[in-house]
Amino acid sequence: MKYDRKHNFYAGPAVLPVSVVEALQAKLPNLGGSGIGLMEISHRAKAFDAVFRSAQAGLKRILGIPEGYEILFLQGGATLQFLMVPLNLMGKRGRADFIDSGAWAKKAIKEAKIAGGDVRVVWSGADRNYSDLPAEGGYEVRPDAAYLHYTSNETIGGVQWKRTPESGAVPLVVDASSDICSCPMDVARHALIYAGAQKNLGPSGVTVVIVRTDLLGKTGDVIPTYLDYQTHIKDEGLHNTPSTLGIFVIDEMCKWLESLGGLAGMYALNQQKAAVLYDEIDRSAFWQPHAARAYRSLMNITWRIADNNLEEKFATEATKAGLIGLKGHRSVGGLRASLYNACPLESVEALVAFMREFERVNG
Amino acid sequence: MKYDRKHNFYAGPAVLPVSVVEALQAKLPNLGGSGIGLMEISHRAKAFDAVFRSAQAGLKRILGIPEGYEILFLQGGATLQFLMVPLNLMGKRGRADFIDSGAWAKKAIKEAKIAGGDVRVVWSGADRNYSDLPAEGGYEVRPDAAYLHYTSNETIGGVQWKRTPESGAVPLVVDASSDICSCPMDVARHALIYAGAQKNLGPSGVTVVIVRTDLLGKTGDVIPTYLDYQTHIKDEGLHNTPSTLGIFVIDEMCKWLESLGGLAGMYALNQQKAAVLYDEIDRSAFWQPHAARAYRSLMNITWRIADNNLEEKFATEATKAGLIGLKGHRSVGGLRASLYNACPLESVEALVAFMREFERVNG
Repeated sequence: MKYDRKHNFYAGPAVLPVSVVEALQAKLPNLGGSGIGLMEISHRAKAFDAVFRSAQAGLKRILGIPEGYEILFLQGGATLQFLMVPLNLMGKRGRADFIDSGAWAKKAIKEAKIAGGDVRVVWSGADRNYSDLPAEGGYEVRPDAAYLHYTSNETIGGVQWKRTPESGAVPLVVDASSDICSCPMDVARHALIYAGAQKNLGPSGVTVVIVRTDLLGKTGDVIPTYLDYQTHIKDEGLHNTPSTLGIFVIDEMCKWLESLGGLAGMYALNQQKAAVLYDEIDRSAFWQPHAARAYRSLMNITWRIADNNLEEKFATEATKAGLIGLKGHRSVGGLRASLYNACPLESVEALVAFMREFERVNG
Repeated sequence: MKYDRKHNFYAGPAVLPVSVVEALQAKLPNLGGSGIGLMEISHRAKAFDAVFRSAQAGLKRILGIPEGYEILFLQGGATLQFLMVPLNLMGKRGRADFIDSGAWAKKAIKEAKIAGGDVRVVWSGADRNYSDLPAEGGYEVRPDAAYLHYTSNETIGGVQWKRTPESGAVPLVVDASSDICSCPMDVARHALIYAGAQKNLGPSGVTVVIVRTDLLGKTGDVIPTYLDYQTHIKDEGLHNTPSTLGIFVIDEMCKWLESLGGLAGMYALNQQKAAVLYDEIDRSAFWQPHAARAYRSLMNITWRIADNNLEEKFATEATKAGLIGLKGHRSVGGLRASLYNACPLESVEALVAFMREFERVNG
């Protein structure tokens, strides 16, 4: 491949389109003829303001974000959002409900408890090793909850929601870190969407938050300045210096997504890529899928080799063959291939060819 | 200049060495022969681990960081540190003292008050429009304070400490965002040093924290996970995904600083650059320096034109002449030139030549 790039299956930071990498390369020394490098320009300069607004407008178009929402580019990843969401929406005297779908949901739950308030888990997949998600009607939300929180895709278990969870009149909050902009989503049914960018939208170090502004400022608690969404809204995203480079890459990713037909086009391609790999996993009893079929992630495909002892060998030989990042997360074991937006079909086909050969030799 | 770059005097994000920009360009598609792009590699991959450890080792060498300190690369800028420092070192039952030297110190004080605890300002430059700093013995620290906080350089007032402040046996905390690695510093006299990287060390979106570990875990309060330094220490800097690109640039900046002779070499060059500009400001009554002479910043030189009405014209014409970012901060007015590490002497000389011509025409 160009630049001797290998097939990148890392769970994040993850592969980006070569064209986006090249756009960054080109503008690093001089952003848009401003005479100032992309990393070196003031976040208050006109040339950067154009990038900032273009990135916001791009996300708004691609995701179909209605009026009444603000789009923020923050720092600290989903990890800091696990704290900011309850501080802003629940407060110490409020309550919030959570769906425990895996490692990421658990972190969100842990942090909401630290934030204070009455936190309840309304469903958990723990006793099935996080291999599935709730069926319709599979949980009950407290009608007076400030919000119901879910994780749209779990990178470790490899499960992904195929519908927007039911929450009645209760506002819905989603950690969309690992599948934002990989498929269409109904923004209007959400009160708040947050996502670390480093899987489908950009580099690490920038976090997208899309929030319905009428829900803010109601807890009655004092919120530390950086952790208060209203701070960033009031200062139009420039309360402090954001990751300017990260915002530039998000803007380029939006352009790339639109060139593929937006989320409909991206989703079709992501479905195609995942099908190629799941078909191979289903083809032979040599492989064992982890996630329940109805909830299989299009982003993180998790599986085992029936003979678990072969997994180490698989990962080692795959690396030698130029297929990088296939070892499963240490908490689950097995194998995992992350097929985020920018992972080309070519990489999935190379992986499947390698799998067939590996089975032929070791099966 | 190369790549048609203009003279960059922005207060941050700020100019970086062309060689560092080029190193980033070169490694963006493929980091160190790993076959994976610099932005696209897992923060847990070996090739990134090498960058991470090299950046830590570089800072340790350059700053002379003794044993007993940890070096962290966090997110959220100094703004989030304004909160993290009191949460970790003061706590709700502790007390801390602050030197109010300007806009940045005020933000640190505001946030410490939100964090809880007994916060006292032991000195303030407010009634002299933040044009000076305490003389030796000019303040008293409470002996039972958890720490004394100061801001080593104020970007808006343009004042900079020329000595390490006295604090007796009380631990010393410094916001060094705008002069870290621009001059030697006595790390061992500090309990904690924090700095957003985007002025002297890298791009925005990565924050350096250097902390004496024996002072942590003593407040008795529960600290939210991301905001607890011990989280990041326990997980060796990878509790969550850091700004991998930001850490790469810091590593390259460390190599560049060492090529100039480390902080002694950098300091000599920064003194020379600032002297060229201060000499011009002092040469004629056409210009009026803002900061008191004893505390003049080498990083942010602030001045007015005696006829204030000419300042707008100056900034506009300077921009046309390729001298970018000279307008003073909106809270002070006037003019400001930021001469951070990577600002070349050539840019300062171009500015002085422009100033002489401006005075000749308008004086």
